[in-house]
Amino acid sequence: MRDAVPEMAGALLAQLRARAPRVHCITNAVAQNFTANALLAAGCVPSMTLSADEIGGFVASAHGLLVNLGTLDAERRAATSIAVAAAHQHKLPWVLDPVFVDRSPGRLAFARNLVARGPRVVRLNHREFEALADTAAKRENVMAYARETRTIVAMSGATDLITDGTRAVGIGNGHMFMAKVTAMGCAGSALVGGFLAVEPDALRAAAAALLMLGVAGELAVRQAQGPGSFAAAILDALNTLDAPTLIAHAKVV
Amino acid sequence: MRDAVPEMAGALLAQLRARAPRVHCITNAVAQNFTANALLAAGCVPSMTLSADEIGGFVASAHGLLVNLGTLDAERRAATSIAVAAAHQHKLPWVLDPVFVDRSPGRLAFARNLVARGPRVVRLNHREFEALADTAAKRENVMAYARETRTIVAMSGATDLITDGTRAVGIGNGHMFMAKVTAMGCAGSALVGGFLAVEPDALRAAAAALLMLGVAGELAVRQAQGPGSFAAAILDALNTLDAPTLIAHAKVV
Amino acid sequence: MRDAVPEMAGALLAQLRARAPRVHCITNAVAQNFTANALLAAGCVPSMTLSADEIGGFVASAHGLLVNLGTLDAERRAATSIAVAAAHQHKLPWVLDPVFVDRSPGRLAFARNLVARGPRVVRLNHREFEALADTAAKRENVMAYARETRTIVAMSGATDLITDGTRAVGIGNGHMFMAKVTAMGCAGSALVGGFLAVEPDALRAAAAALLMLGVAGELAVRQAQGPGSFAAAILDALNTLDAPTLIAHAKVV
Repeated sequence: MRDAVPEMAGALLAQLRARAPRVHCITNAVAQNFTANALLAAGCVPSMTLSADEIGGFVASAHGLLVNLGTLDAERRAATSIAVAAAHQHKLPWVLDPVFVDRSPGRLAFARNLVARGPRVVRLNHREFEALADTAAKRENVMAYARETRTIVAMSGATDLITDGTRAVGIGNGHMFMAKVTAMGCAGSALVGGFLAVEPDALRAAAAALLMLGVAGELAVRQAQGPGSFAAAILDALNTLDAPTLIAHAKVV
Repeated sequence: MRDAVPEMAGALLAQLRARAPRVHCITNAVAQNFTANALLAAGCVPSMTLSADEIGGFVASAHGLLVNLGTLDAERRAATSIAVAAAHQHKLPWVLDPVFVDRSPGRLAFARNLVARGPRVVRLNHREFEALADTAAKRENVMAYARETRTIVAMSGATDLITDGTRAVGIGNGHMFMAKVTAMGCAGSALVGGFLAVEPDALRAAAAALLMLGVAGELAVRQAQGPGSFAAAILDALNTLDAPTLIAHAKVV
Repeated sequence: MRDAVPEMAGALLAQLRARAPRVHCITNAVAQNFTANALLAAGCVPSMTLSADEIGGFVASAHGLLVNLGTLDAERRAATSIAVAAAHQHKLPWVLDPVFVDRSPGRLAFARNLVARGPRVVRLNHREFEALADTAAKRENVMAYARETRTIVAMSGATDLITDGTRAVGIGNGHMFMAKVTAMGCAGSALVGGFLAVEPDALRAAAAALLMLGVAGELAVRQAQGPGSFAAAILDALNTLDAPTLIAHAKVV
């Protein structure tokens, strides 16, 4: 599996560029602009509408959906309910990013209900996973959690871990500046939504998305003097990255 | 007309810098930051408040108004109604940007009602125009649409078309990166709002704004490695652009 | 006092980096992204949630609070009331940034009520101060206003003035590009919130924050061709700035 990931990701990247999938994003107010730019740079078409009377139509005409729980409010809760129902109706894959569930009990309960509604991928960090898993046994075993919830867990960290409970892929690409730019993880989740639109195997889609972001981050560092110039440079890198470069830089473990 | 556009635009740019008009923006959540920065770089003073109890006062003390329909929600619908009424009361010019009316029937109906309320300029792309025009005859004839609705249509594309139904100006400036940065069109519409504040002839104002943005885009490409660095560079170019440079680079057809 | 400010600010900067305080921000829609990135670059951990059912918990687990009145709406008004109460309950310092109170009577009344609830610092520009002070005598005397309201006034300008009514510090650092990037003042207020988390003397905290931002601005200009590249470069500079560099560049008057 692991040896095949770089070539697989390169092939999916080429498909993403060719198909330009529409990704509808319910995402937090801080991340909307950077997420839209990351999707555009990668070759996707973003939309961000949240209103209850429009979001069903936007989701119906999209190819992937992101549900990110940052700055969760009444409008976003209502939008999520409608959007997830529309995604199921139209067999649209969706990804959940349960931002800051470790800091809000209400959001944590909302996120757990969403996990039960069948996201293809849950992308989160280690603290968020610790909160989301509801027993000590699950907290200690990401693969068991993925098996039980029948979702792909994509957990970011020094090495990103992506697992469906049976298979597991680790991605060692990235740079510490990625934690110094707000919305970087959110943008990564949106990219997962884009790759889900071109690849039915959600583990492969998530691995390709996070590999693309991590390699773009490494290329961007060469142009950056700090997190501000890095944020611009990673968009440049997402735009120019091609399959051979992705494959050449991939660190899959 | 066409031969005179570059010099006219140069003169308006000088006026814009001198007068620093206040432009109030009802715009989508994705575009607010970039739009504010584009207005500041061009020499305008942006404000973005949406709340029903404040927007009338902000519009009353502004010199131009933008109504952009991206991420349209209940707050933005209410704000638009109040703001357009205030604009009419205070004889403030306003520009409509009917984002994504091709993807939402409810938004399309809202946009058509707004066109009937007399924006000075409607700035949009080709897909949005196709949706907005309600008959096949109008879809085939942008000038007829402009005549019938008594507005200026500014339609972006490889060549921007600006027409009042009698006169028509084409602008060939720009770069493909402009379609890779979210909110670029939205920022262009906001600049139209700024130029409307210094030029009563809305065709001239719209042409000057889109010429300024297109030339800034061409200058920005020289500093850019991709859409991320381009987004910063076009703000730099908007800030430094002067009348002679604008005139020298103008491609008016 | 003044001679000691640079070394004091350098020591506080080192503490900020070491402690990485959580700063919860109620801030305007235009400023959320840049403010989060400025806080991250400076070494803080931002959060931005506004919803009434979550904000109390976020504030309770934060170390500083920003209340910025830009794009004030019903959600932000409700959030502010809850957040300020939570801040008082948990003895959390908070900073008020009364954006555009000179352009909205309703916002001005809201801001005056907030001043009475005891922010540690009020950061604003000269026009906003003129509006906030309710008598001619106070308008002419910033120190008298600070004494009477028992708050620190931090007024930005060519020279920033920071006073508690008895002591006063002037900071001459900065660059004119800082007025050409939206949310720069908002980000400065957020940094005040970060420094309040590591320094109980609010005058010192505010002076350190504005000195850090001003020096970062001067360093950023060297990398910038205009306000777009400047916005990225000041984030880079906030990230790399250390105590010796801060002290070497400080212009305290």
